[in-house]
Amino acid sequence: MGIVATSFRDELLAAGLLVPLGADGLYGRAAAFEDVVDALARLIVSLGAADGAARIRFPPIEPRSVFDRTDYLRSFPDLTGAVVTFRGDDAGHARLLAAADTGDDWTELLEPADAMLCPAVCHPLYPTLTGTLPAGGATYDLQGWCFRHEPSVDPARMQAFRQHEIVYVGDAAGARAHRDRWVERGTELLADLGLDVEAVVANDPFFGRVGRMLATNQRDQELKIELVVTVASADQPTAVVSSNCHEDHFGAAFGINTAEGDVAHSACVGFGLERVTLALLRRHGLDVERWPSTVRDRLWP
Amino acid sequence: MGIVATSFRDELLAAGLLVPLGADGLYGRAAAFEDVVDALARLIVSLGAADGAARIRFPPIEPRSVFDRTDYLRSFPDLTGAVVTFRGDDAGHARLLAAADTGDDWTELLEPADAMLCPAVCHPLYPTLTGTLPAGGATYDLQGWCFRHEPSVDPARMQAFRQHEIVYVGDAAGARAHRDRWVERGTELLADLGLDVEAVVANDPFFGRVGRMLATNQRDQELKIELVVTVASADQPTAVVSSNCHEDHFGAAFGINTAEGDVAHSACVGFGLERVTLALLRRHGLDVERWPSTVRDRLWP
Repeated sequence: MGIVATSFRDELLAAGLLVPLGADGLYGRAAAFEDVVDALARLIVSLGAADGAARIRFPPIEPRSVFDRTDYLRSFPDLTGAVVTFRGDDAGHARLLAAADTGDDWTELLEPADAMLCPAVCHPLYPTLTGTLPAGGATYDLQGWCFRHEPSVDPARMQAFRQHEIVYVGDAAGARAHRDRWVERGTELLADLGLDVEAVVANDPFFGRVGRMLATNQRDQELKIELVVTVASADQPTAVVSSNCHEDHFGAAFGINTAEGDVAHSACVGFGLERVTLALLRRHGLDVERWPSTVRDRLWP
Repeated sequence: MGIVATSFRDELLAAGLLVPLGADGLYGRAAAFEDVVDALARLIVSLGAADGAARIRFPPIEPRSVFDRTDYLRSFPDLTGAVVTFRGDDAGHARLLAAADTGDDWTELLEPADAMLCPAVCHPLYPTLTGTLPAGGATYDLQGWCFRHEPSVDPARMQAFRQHEIVYVGDAAGARAHRDRWVERGTELLADLGLDVEAVVANDPFFGRVGRMLATNQRDQELKIELVVTVASADQPTAVVSSNCHEDHFGAAFGINTAEGDVAHSACVGFGLERVTLALLRRHGLDVERWPSTVRDRLWP
């Protein structure tokens, strides 16, 4: 896949759709790329509105107290981004600049900033729901920037990217139904956009020894379904949408209860806006103006 | 200001326009708030298009190599956010989780991730321009998330917020003209939206002893003009737009030359999208539906 991914990346850069920023997996997005992202977001908003989803937008960072309660550190420590900052005085500042001037690692002189880069756009939602949900649960439309530290030349594996999520929080049956409904809706949307979609059981890259057990559990219970399409390689399709039952993971961690008094379950569908855009560019070509009119009409009705 | 700012913040939270995330200066934005942000962004895009600005969108993080060359660490170390991550093995992971479980500072066990939170949305642009500019220079329309570590209860002082910038890179006269033109355009736009605007010479919070000299220089040369309006307090108005001549700071740091072979100058206008939105909410009330029709028509033509 390495060679194919690199060659697709080269085409995207040559077309000026992505602008390399000097580190693997960090890109500027040109207007033509962003216009597709925006159009996809509008389509997802309108699908979410049919579920009565309340739109909220979160910043790309979350308090450390929120991150700690998600247990993300147990599953994906290597993808984590914590924020550190300078808290010293003039003398400390002089040492910091001296370290920077000599090329030393000046981040060692920094201290925690009580902020983590959001690894998933729904994290900051859960602490806002601590308490009792309305009867029937609640649905949210979220979009924002996620960070995952996995520098790669594969343009579909960015370090900073946008997820658009529709999240349900309520009872167990509602969460399953949400997950399943959005597998269908996501498949339909991607097919409408001319993509060949397959739904597969997800296989998240949990870290280390403990992670192998978590991965087995995730697969065995079929908690997370991914919609995969060709981006870099037809042999190794890329997940562009995932629909995930969290069971009571977040409900228990954040003290969220249903109107009936049970610990809340949750489920979310997440569209990778850059990945869907890349899949469309791969499928229909790099000149968005020349995409099939059926696809353009769906994106820009 | 503390009390007034806190009371305005309380009103915003009670109206559900901002959702507190558990740390000062971090909020979710409700749909009504975001709709104003989006409308402002569309207006700025159309004003930038009149200058032929090329739209690019950057992620909220930039490579450390870019950050280092901006010299931001010299001026604002205390506002900086560096990203650290976990690079260890199973044993290191066990130590990390043990530290997290006992409430110790587990970020000490992390290592630099070659990523900084962007403190200004135009930073990632400059390294993409290394070399020779087209004749007449070039203009860019940028929007993205910035991070500044200054936790505050003042809703106008968020840690994570969006800037919308129109940036000119070219010769010195072009940069001055861009700065001045956008002071005018910004003033006109804010006045159209019903805000009482004043243009003042900026007074950035440079850090420490060295910073006092930098601040004096910035004021004496009148390099940066801010448009201030009432947000939290009429006595202490808030800068919602700034228009800034960088002279050859970025041109020299990133090796950018004009077509004539001189070191490029640059200038940018930056609209604080959350701050303008907050100023409008303060001026016209928290119910956006009931804003004056002249204002609504300008935002949603």
